[in-house]
Formats: sequence, C-alpha cells, structure tokens
Amino acid sequence: MTYEQITFSVSERIATITLARPDKLNAYTIRMMEELLDAFDRVDRDDEIGAVIVTGAGARAFCAGADLEMGAATFEGTSGPGSPIRADGSIDYASESARDYGGRLSLRIFACLKPVIGAINGAAVGIGATMLLPMDFRIAVPGARLGFVFVRRGIVPEGCSAWFLPRIVGVAKALDWTMTGRLVSADEAMAVGAINEIAPEGELLARARAQALACIGQSAPVSIALTRQMMWRGLGMAHPMEAHRVESRGVLARGRSADAREGVTAFIEKREARFPETVSHDMPDYFPWWQDPAYG
Amino acid sequence: MTYEQITFSVSERIATITLARPDKLNAYTIRMMEELLDAFDRVDRDDEIGAVIVTGAGARAFCAGADLEMGAATFEGTSGPGSPIRADGSIDYASESARDYGGRLSLRIFACLKPVIGAINGAAVGIGATMLLPMDFRIAVPGARLGFVFVRRGIVPEGCSAWFLPRIVGVAKALDWTMTGRLVSADEAMAVGAINEIAPEGELLARARAQALACIGQSAPVSIALTRQMMWRGLGMAHPMEAHRVESRGVLARGRSADAREGVTAFIEKREARFPETVSHDMPDYFPWWQDPAYG
Amino acid sequence: MTYEQITFSVSERIATITLARPDKLNAYTIRMMEELLDAFDRVDRDDEIGAVIVTGAGARAFCAGADLEMGAATFEGTSGPGSPIRADGSIDYASESARDYGGRLSLRIFACLKPVIGAINGAAVGIGATMLLPMDFRIAVPGARLGFVFVRRGIVPEGCSAWFLPRIVGVAKALDWTMTGRLVSADEAMAVGAINEIAPEGELLARARAQALACIGQSAPVSIALTRQMMWRGLGMAHPMEAHRVESRGVLARGRSADAREGVTAFIEKREARFPETVSHDMPDYFPWWQDPAYG
Repeated sequence: MTYEQITFSVSERIATITLARPDKLNAYTIRMMEELLDAFDRVDRDDEIGAVIVTGAGARAFCAGADLEMGAATFEGTSGPGSPIRADGSIDYASESARDYGGRLSLRIFACLKPVIGAINGAAVGIGATMLLPMDFRIAVPGARLGFVFVRRGIVPEGCSAWFLPRIVGVAKALDWTMTGRLVSADEAMAVGAINEIAPEGELLARARAQALACIGQSAPVSIALTRQMMWRGLGMAHPMEAHRVESRGVLARGRSADAREGVTAFIEKREARFPETVSHDMPDYFPWWQDPAYG
Repeated sequence: MTYEQITFSVSERIATITLARPDKLNAYTIRMMEELLDAFDRVDRDDEIGAVIVTGAGARAFCAGADLEMGAATFEGTSGPGSPIRADGSIDYASESARDYGGRLSLRIFACLKPVIGAINGAAVGIGATMLLPMDFRIAVPGARLGFVFVRRGIVPEGCSAWFLPRIVGVAKALDWTMTGRLVSADEAMAVGAINEIAPEGELLARARAQALACIGQSAPVSIALTRQMMWRGLGMAHPMEAHRVESRGVLARGRSADAREGVTAFIEKREARFPETVSHDMPDYFPWWQDPAYG
Repeated sequence: MTYEQITFSVSERIATITLARPDKLNAYTIRMMEELLDAFDRVDRDDEIGAVIVTGAGARAFCAGADLEMGAATFEGTSGPGSPIRADGSIDYASESARDYGGRLSLRIFACLKPVIGAINGAAVGIGATMLLPMDFRIAVPGARLGFVFVRRGIVPEGCSAWFLPRIVGVAKALDWTMTGRLVSADEAMAVGAINEIAPEGELLARARAQALACIGQSAPVSIALTRQMMWRGLGMAHPMEAHRVESRGVLARGRSADAREGVTAFIEKREARFPETVSHDMPDYFPWWQDPAYG
C-alpha cells in the first residue's frame, strides 16, 4: 500500500508513523484510517520493528479531528450501495459499514504487539484525541491540547473512548472532559495520567525514542507482546482468576523458552541479555488466549 | 408530589435540589428518598432543565447519614406486610422491599440524562457520602468531610458504593476509607478525584452553577445525555468492542441529526451553536442501548 | 504446619508474617508459598487476629523474586508425575499443577477476611512485587523499589498482576512498569497509589501497626470482612446493580445484628463500641455471595 496521508519510516528498531496533512492540521479521513491500519499491520509483521511512535506533521496539530471539508454533511455517513443508510433513511447499525472509523483504528492499536508511543506535537481534537487512548505512552509538547469536543458539535465520543477514557483518567475526569467538550492542557492531562511526560518541542521525538528504547532495549520482544495484551485485557477481566489462567500459561510456556534461559543466565552473569525469539515465529501456543467479540 | 424534606427550584436552566432538614443535619429518610427519586424524574422530564445541583440546607452538613432517631433499631428494617423480614425472622433478600434505600437513589442518579453536580456544603456521612458518588462533579467547601463510617456502626457500605467508590478513587483509597471508617478531609478527597474542586463557602453554589454552565452552555443536550451514559456505562464494559458498537450507532444517528448540522456549521462559521433537539423528543432510536439487570 | 521460610507471630490482635530467608533476599520458593497459604488460613480462622502485616526479614529486600538457584532452569517447571509437562514436552495448561505459584498466593490474599498491610522493608521484585498488589495497604521504607522485571527475564507478569496492577495504578503506569521492567522508586509508586505511605526504616513496623489499628480499633470485625470483599469484588462487577444486590443483603442482615445495635447505641452515647460478633461465628447467611470461578 502506498501512503498518501501518512509517512512511515524505521530507524534503529523504532518505526515512526506521521500523520502527514499539515496544511489540513492532519485532519482524519477514511483514507488516513486505511493507511494507519496498514501501517500497524506492518509494525506487527516486521521483527525488525520493536516499537512504534505516532506523531503529526507540522508544529500546530497532532490531528485536528475529522476533516470537515464536507461541512454540515461531514458526519452524515455515506449513502448508496454498501452504505448502512437504507433507502428509507433508517440505519442498519449492525452492518460492517456502520462501524465508526475512529473505533476501527483504536481496536487495531489495542491489538498491537509492540509498544505504541504517541508523540503529541500539538492540538489533538476529536478523533485526534481518542486515537491516543489505546497507545501505551503519550508524550506531549507543553502547548498541546486534548479536546473531546463531541458534545459541542452535536455528536458523541467515538474511537472506543467510552471504554478507554474512564479507565485511563478516571470516570470523574472523563465526564468532565466529554460533557464540557473543553480543551484540556497538557499539564491537566498529565496530572491524571492521560499524558506520561511533557517534552520541549525540539525534544519531543527524542523523548519518544527514549521511551521506546526503555521498553525494547533490555526486554524480550515476545514477553513484551504478551505483557502488553495482558495489561490491557486485564482491565476487562471480571475476576483475578482470569488473569491467573493466562499468567499460568505464560509462566509455563515462557519459562521453558530460549528467551527465559537467556534472561535468567544473563541476569546471573550480570550481562545484557540477547533474546533469540521473535514475535513472528515464537508466540506461545496459547496465544491469543482470548476471542474478540465480533461487531454487530 | 409535594416535597417536605427537600426543596426544588429551577433558574436559568439549572435545577437545584436541596436536602432540607437542617435541624437534623439533613439526615436521610425513606420519605427523603422518595422525594429525591421524584425530583430526578422531574429533572429528566423537563427540557427547560439542562443540569442539576444537589446540596444541603444549613452550614453544618450536606447529609449526616441515615436518621438515627429510632436508635438501636434504626437499621433493623420494617416488619409486617410487605416487609422482607419473614415471620420467623429470616430475610427474603430477593424481595423488592429488601432493596437498600441508598442504592435505589444511586441507581436513579446513575440513570440521569443531565449533568449532576454535588455542592457539598458540610459533612457528608454514610448515605450522605455514598449518594455523591454517582454524581458527575463534586464541589466542596474547605471544611467538608466524607465519612464512609459503616464499619464503625457494625453495618456495611451501601448506595452501590462497592461499584462506584473503587472506580472513582481507586481500590486502595476505597479500602482505606471504608475499612477504617475515618472522616476524610476535602483536600484528601480532592487529591484522588473524589472531589473536583474546593470552593469557599460563600461561593459554593456559584461554582456549582459555573460547572453546570460549562456543560450546558455550548453543548447539545441530547449529546450530553448520551455521553453521560456512555462514560458511566463504559466502566462496566468488558471489551472495547462494546464501546465500539454503541459509539458506531451514536456517530451515525447523531451525525445525521439537526444538532450535528448546526454544530458543524456553527464551528465553521465561528459562532455559538443553537442546538434544536431535546432530550424528551429527540433521543436516537438505539437509545437505551442497554438493558439494566433487574434486582433480585 | 511448621514454618521454615517464614515466621508468624501475633501481638495485640495483629499478626505479623515475615518472609524469613534474609541471606537469600527472601527469595520465593514453593515451600514459602505453602507456608504463606497456611499462615493466611490461620489469620482468617483466629478471631484473636484482627489484621495482618506482611514484611521481610533483613534490611535489603522485602522479596527479591523467585529463587534463581536453579539458574536457567528456574522457570522450566517440574517434570515427572503430577507435572503439567507431558512426556512429549507439551503442556497441560488446565492441570491444577500448571497454576502459577504467585497467583495462588494472590488469590488467597484476595480472599482474606482481615485487613492486610504490606510493610515493604526493601526491594520487592517479581513475585515480591506482585504479591503486594492484593494487600490493602502498602507502607514502604524510602529506599524500597518495586520491580515488575518479567520482560527482562524473558517471561511474563504473574501473581494475578494483569488483574490487580492496572486497577491499582492505572493502565498507563501498569504498561510503563511492566513493558520496561524498570525499578520503580517508592516516591513514584506512592504518587500513583501503589504505596500508601513512606515510613523511615526504624518506624516501618510501627506505622504498619498504626494502620492496622486504624482499621480494627473502632470497627466491627464482621463488617470489615464484608467490606473488604465488597470493595475488591466491586471492581469486577459489570453493573452497579450487582453492588446493590450485595449491599441490600448486607444492610438488612447486618442492620439486625447485635453489632449494629451496639454500633448505633455507642455512637448515640458517644462512647467506644464493643462489637460482640466474630468472623468465625457470625458471618451473615448470604456470605459468600459469590462463586469463584474454578481454575482450568
């Protein structure tokens, strides 16, 4: 797939995906979603990539939200063949084509096998804010703003933010931010864990790379992939026994792996470990341990 | 319904419900519960009301808890016809009459379609503390105290606080507050998100009104009603796909609404939006998207 | 059971369990797990015990993790009769013997009927860190460190931490700590609620005892046991109605108890309550209200 609205590069095991419509404040389109979905597939497929950074081009915005160039019709949805809008104007909600474009991206990021770092170079509004939530780390320039502005446009939050936002910042802040629709400063976001770190503009990408390296520099890629899914999916477990089942499988399967032998040996020998296993070849046989619900 | 233990007023789209037994420190009674349930029905029914403030009369207490005028028999429950206490002294737990009076109120507030702001004018103890949890914003005077004192009376937490409290303040603080039963200062409560803001006594209601206005001043009422339910119910969702289903319906149905056309147009024209739709007439056809479990 | 790797003592209604292999940095073994499981049974059984403190012997470590004396084979699991490792090398994940030794302990602590206070006297790494999570209070010396180091050894988090950690510290910090495997300072842990209090080394146990006393000094033991389970299990409830059911049972059953009569009377008489009921004899008939899922 050739990218028109994003760029994709890899350097020293870290991929960088850049939303690349700076003259449109990196506004989100269906095309951009398709390119992002493809880019995350590349990230997961390529063992040379250990982590991924998502940022925006230009100095003004990370992503200003859905592209409003269609004006009042922006959120009306497509019509015609394949559209969830029936001829009589009613909506086929269960149709695959009815799926929110923000949520499709959030679910893809949720499923990623590598650490995902958001490098927030400016305003993140609407889908620009919600797409950050399933990322693992969020680093922002001091002037960045988050805007869950949906109620001010007459619409509703998307991007699976009803699941992510109250879990990340707490339900009180989630209600505040989404029911007022106000712009939230980087400082306020950081105070409640929505942002991990504030970095000067000139150091944003360097800090994002440092965070990626903190994950991949000394860790086994297969262990990271499993751990990432365990922590996120742990949030949806009703009882600690569910965690116990998954972890018991992990302790046994990973405990007998070449990675574990190397990890323990290197620790005892006080040297850096060189983990041999890869995500594309060595995920344990119990993975995935879940079955995602279908849309509909 | 005529109110005896609360007062109800509306001014500039904001309703104010006042617990009005100041000589009893606004202690909670069955009658007060019935009046509060009725008042929240009025709030939801009346499109002239955009948000609601709940406060207490007098300077000493928001609500000091259940009325203890029956002394040692206070929590024994009623007996006779309709009582969940059988003739042999055993309890019919599944009976509708067995339902905790605090929980009935909390579930009603949980279901509210308007932003709910608690204006905590003094001590909030027992049911006085737990009834605050399903509210969206909590603003307190500096001397306010929260007391989850149940273990000190030999009883247990109520008001659905087993669901709300660990989600709002984190499980560590929830365990601390409920297993010690100690009084918690406004500062401590604010540090963990149980209180959003501390306001001088003379400014409490003004600050509560300002918070209400921050929600309703620039937002579509139908969008707020949906968003409020999305964030609260998102907390109970096992998987982000559940959010994706609800949000996809919301994006499509609301995206085609008169509110969305006005919201986007006003944004592009850089003017304030005038949203035409109302909660009583224009909730989308997929609402409610949930089925609440029955008691029993 | 005679303890070899822990010590157990009781003083003034507070039990103290000490991980007692200081020359091995209190490294965790199967034997230690068995002794800890037994010790928690004693805690729950003995009405003379109101709360329990868990700490480590020596000044260096609370628990440095799994004992690595088997070197690279540490996490390979046992083989032979009763082992989950089949002759062909495949793993019987559903076998009871496949269960993670950390998770078995965490689930036992989760089920405890008394407040559990972790007194973290030094480094807590691997299982040493995860076993702290189901405790109710964590107090640490200033130099204590938490290390969720699993990815650096090529393995995965255990001890039900996929359930506990993101709920206690938030998912962003949980991802950070477990995907980097870095050591976390007491200050950082306290800022996100993983540690309740930092105490000078010489005052650690005194502070832990003070916390225990804050729970048991003025509260009914049966109320504490119920409240502890309500708050922890509330985290796994999908809907506040589930809390309402449990709380309604609690309000009725406890409201008619001798403890409640004493609690209300003492409050009205402004004197300290003397609660007559005990966990071993007086748990209400609806307890336990849950059925824990089986492993497998």
